[in-house]
Amino acid sequence: MSVNTRILLKQRSRGIPREQDFELVNVAADSPAAGELRGETLYLSLDPYLRGKISGRHLSGAVNEGGLMAGEALSRVVESKSDKFKEGDIIAAHSGWQSHPVINADSARAVNPELGPLSTLLGISGMPGLTAYAGMTRLAELKPADVVVVSAASGPVGSMVGQIAKQRGCHVVGVAGSNEKCRWVVEQAGFDDCINYREEALRDGLKRTCPGGIDVYFDNVGGDVLQASMEQLALGARVILCGLMAQYNINEMPPGPNPAFTIKARATVRGLVVYDHEDLRPEFEQQVSAWLKQGKIKYKEDMVEGLEAAPGLFCRLMRGENFGKAIVKVAEQ
Amino acid sequence: MSVNTRILLKQRSRGIPREQDFELVNVAADSPAAGELRGETLYLSLDPYLRGKISGRHLSGAVNEGGLMAGEALSRVVESKSDKFKEGDIIAAHSGWQSHPVINADSARAVNPELGPLSTLLGISGMPGLTAYAGMTRLAELKPADVVVVSAASGPVGSMVGQIAKQRGCHVVGVAGSNEKCRWVVEQAGFDDCINYREEALRDGLKRTCPGGIDVYFDNVGGDVLQASMEQLALGARVILCGLMAQYNINEMPPGPNPAFTIKARATVRGLVVYDHEDLRPEFEQQVSAWLKQGKIKYKEDMVEGLEAAPGLFCRLMRGENFGKAIVKVAEQ
Repeated sequence: MSVNTRILLKQRSRGIPREQDFELVNVAADSPAAGELRGETLYLSLDPYLRGKISGRHLSGAVNEGGLMAGEALSRVVESKSDKFKEGDIIAAHSGWQSHPVINADSARAVNPELGPLSTLLGISGMPGLTAYAGMTRLAELKPADVVVVSAASGPVGSMVGQIAKQRGCHVVGVAGSNEKCRWVVEQAGFDDCINYREEALRDGLKRTCPGGIDVYFDNVGGDVLQASMEQLALGARVILCGLMAQYNINEMPPGPNPAFTIKARATVRGLVVYDHEDLRPEFEQQVSAWLKQGKIKYKEDMVEGLEAAPGLFCRLMRGENFGKAIVKVAEQ
Repeated sequence: MSVNTRILLKQRSRGIPREQDFELVNVAADSPAAGELRGETLYLSLDPYLRGKISGRHLSGAVNEGGLMAGEALSRVVESKSDKFKEGDIIAAHSGWQSHPVINADSARAVNPELGPLSTLLGISGMPGLTAYAGMTRLAELKPADVVVVSAASGPVGSMVGQIAKQRGCHVVGVAGSNEKCRWVVEQAGFDDCINYREEALRDGLKRTCPGGIDVYFDNVGGDVLQASMEQLALGARVILCGLMAQYNINEMPPGPNPAFTIKARATVRGLVVYDHEDLRPEFEQQVSAWLKQGKIKYKEDMVEGLEAAPGLFCRLMRGENFGKAIVKVAEQ
């Protein structure tokens, strides 16, 4: 009998999650029924939106106390009771924090390992990359002379946003939380500038780097960075609201920027949810695969090994201490 | 020597303006120099944005203490030193609260008295009407099945917004501050419903009248009405931010709604400033004139007589106690 290692939510986190909020259990691995498959998890993706599921207020649903922690993962099919997949296929599914998930074949998606390094399919070539791509190609109305600002700039969404904008000829400024991250953003990802908000007041940093105002602001965090950016929009600015890291760890819903900033700039502010843009995925995957092969896109991963390391990395992610896409390598490819 | 009666800002208002913040003076009327004209003011428009000029923070500039109160007015030309206008022409200009302004001809605009009752050129056929028209035709991406909500619904912008939406087949709900206003909005202006926010909790009223959510929210007030509306947006909603009556009388800039509401609804939020849409005016004027002649548009005016009545009406407007477009009839047409 094979074992399935699972990590459960022991108790809903209050504030920033701690490792003791999670619990590892070993259970007998289930067998797939008709239409199902059993996978061996290779890579597990840890993403900020999971904090909302722990609180029970994310639009994709809640994780309950005692329940399996949620998350997208790449798995190798080890047993299939579905015509859609065969043993050895690599699939992506929201199969959660477990080593040997049983997955309904209809909720799994085949991935093409030829597209690039497999782990990138959870980051720059996966959901975060698609988020950035949808935002920049569909919502940003990007023009070559635009001054583009993006928060969480060294993360998988932010770094892709900035690199797409650079390819379109824009002037790109990142916001990140350490000098090491800022250095990577400028020297590796090719941004024009990066503000370390822990060392420079945001308003000063934005004035210094965007003296003519911000044309496009892609927001992954909300809170103070959103507020400071709204105050310095150029006329006709576009703002994409995508993530709310600044408020994931608090229970009340804080207020946002005054509407006067939107009026003054005649800005267009749009909400982005990646689930709406699934139709873009084939085009996006081909594009990002080509960029990766041509060396045109840089990415950074913060990878740990072993499923048991997931809670620790997730807690670091929620403290903003990770650097790059948070990924757990669960088993060898 | 003829007299020019002027109303000055005696002191910057703190909170809601009071009549003693203004001062009436009689001075000798100036004569026009080359390129100028002298007018006799017929109708003076009082609008909420003037409160921002008193505070010195409106994007069109400030009114200083001791300075002439600003405002758009219709005048008859009584003396012209410009080729552009002749005696007897009716013009619109931002000539302020005075009976006999001297106006640079380049800053005046001829108006066509055939378009409709002259006073409407300051309301439904003028700047407020154009504001509504630009918002609904350019920014709202209106669809016939949309549920449209508009605040300050009995005012010149709000009543026009709702009536344009009704003409396009939308379901239209107003928000206003008295049962009398709500009755007019439904019975005269033809809205489907109207919430009196002084008698029914806004969130309840919006749930009752828009059970499937709000597709288009046209905001003239900000504050609580904006917050409650953002909480009940339908997927793909469009929000037009136009006025901020809720904060004109306070000095600090209060926060706005949390960005999560925009994200959850995948909403598009746009800032509207009517000055950007001057190019629409000819089309708009022809359209609204036809509607007026066909009886297809209703409007309500709150008109007082005599320039000396301007401060009282302005203070009522800023207390939300006016009903309809605030206009001062200064002289007989």
